[in-house]
Amino acid sequence: MVVSLTIEYDGTNYCGWQIQPGLPTIQSELEAALEKVSGKHLDIVGSGRTDSGVHAKGQVASFETDSGMDPERYSYALNTFLPEDIRVLKSRREEDGFNARFSAKKKTYMYSMYVDRISHPLEDRYSLQLINNLNVQEMQKAAERFKGTHDFACFLSSNSSVVSTVRTIYESRIEADGNKIRYIVTGNGFLYNMVRIMVGTLIDVGEGKKKPEDMDEIMSGKDRGLAGHTVKAKGLTLMSVEYE
Amino acid sequence: MVVSLTIEYDGTNYCGWQIQPGLPTIQSELEAALEKVSGKHLDIVGSGRTDSGVHAKGQVASFETDSGMDPERYSYALNTFLPEDIRVLKSRREEDGFNARFSAKKKTYMYSMYVDRISHPLEDRYSLQLINNLNVQEMQKAAERFKGTHDFACFLSSNSSVVSTVRTIYESRIEADGNKIRYIVTGNGFLYNMVRIMVGTLIDVGEGKKKPEDMDEIMSGKDRGLAGHTVKAKGLTLMSVEYE
Repeated sequence: MVVSLTIEYDGTNYCGWQIQPGLPTIQSELEAALEKVSGKHLDIVGSGRTDSGVHAKGQVASFETDSGMDPERYSYALNTFLPEDIRVLKSRREEDGFNARFSAKKKTYMYSMYVDRISHPLEDRYSLQLINNLNVQEMQKAAERFKGTHDFACFLSSNSSVVSTVRTIYESRIEADGNKIRYIVTGNGFLYNMVRIMVGTLIDVGEGKKKPEDMDEIMSGKDRGLAGHTVKAKGLTLMSVEYE
Repeated sequence: MVVSLTIEYDGTNYCGWQIQPGLPTIQSELEAALEKVSGKHLDIVGSGRTDSGVHAKGQVASFETDSGMDPERYSYALNTFLPEDIRVLKSRREEDGFNARFSAKKKTYMYSMYVDRISHPLEDRYSLQLINNLNVQEMQKAAERFKGTHDFACFLSSNSSVVSTVRTIYESRIEADGNKIRYIVTGNGFLYNMVRIMVGTLIDVGEGKKKPEDMDEIMSGKDRGLAGHTVKAKGLTLMSVEYE
């Protein structure tokens, strides 16, 4: 039986999703809890790795088990053993062959920022402080240019290697509320650090250092050096993962 | 010269506002920073004490100084020495005789809650999880009954003593957004734990254990035992303090 888990976590105190010996990670906490629940070690597959410090409201993971336990009970059972900053919101049986990583069709990320010369302790855990005023309309125009199928090599962290850097972006928009700005992006997949580099590039546009129409050149240039910097992880949240 | 400070803090890691020997408090961090800025110890007076774990978006404090430093520079100077979870948003000169505590006319607090059987790591730092569904309309009716001038002895923590327990409440309302519920209350002052006991009482109403009209009896009874329990500090934020 394949069981999927929908997971929320505050990534502040974790070295990301993926197991790393001796370091606290989301996957290792989940596998340790699952071992207590099922009495043996089972591998958990996540929809993708989130980096150190990145949060999730709707990460999805899956595992196979031959246990007869009601799959919907796993959320309650796992939460008994998980630390308070990780919670399984839902667990359910999936069709045979389901794999949280390979079956994923779309992922949505949100990046939160605010603009002020003075930092705000009640915002800082989950959003990035920016000093300079941003032109939100220009950022929105730039964000729209990311929509569609493109080679996103320009937004690939320079120390990465992947087979293909082509991805499809379905939604890419800026929401502003006073001095708070959010970027929401949905795609069929994201390269390592891709969202954080997209946001760094959009901030350049908001600050007038780049123009919306420069996005086309940056994407076609396939050169990491043309894009903006990689913004901090703490503003990033994996909101949801969609399957067929 | 009297200088006022408007302060935001994440109270999670502090034993409240007031200085307590050997414990981390907001006031002690501020006085330590001010000593570094001004080269000598100056007493800082807060508009009121916030309890251990309570947050603030707009706490106000004041101090007297004979320094010739531009009063608006204190915010930047103090932030250099303050920990990241405390920030002085604004500093300015006040009229002689101004005292952040005694000159305060109104304070506004917000208490944040959410309803779900499973806790949410991304909400838990600043809001209280509730398990049972709440009748928000009934809570709103009850909240409205707190408005006006009443003897709030019923909402006074049982180990407290004050001269008068009469306070005036100007605003008292519930805001709901999906499973998130906020209580916003403005008054000319609040007794120790008063807002947290008011919220515990409103939750009883939301759960059907008390009725809105019971509020009148609870207030006139002046008996702490009739009111609800004291909810956790982490959901409470001092939003603003108003002066003439």
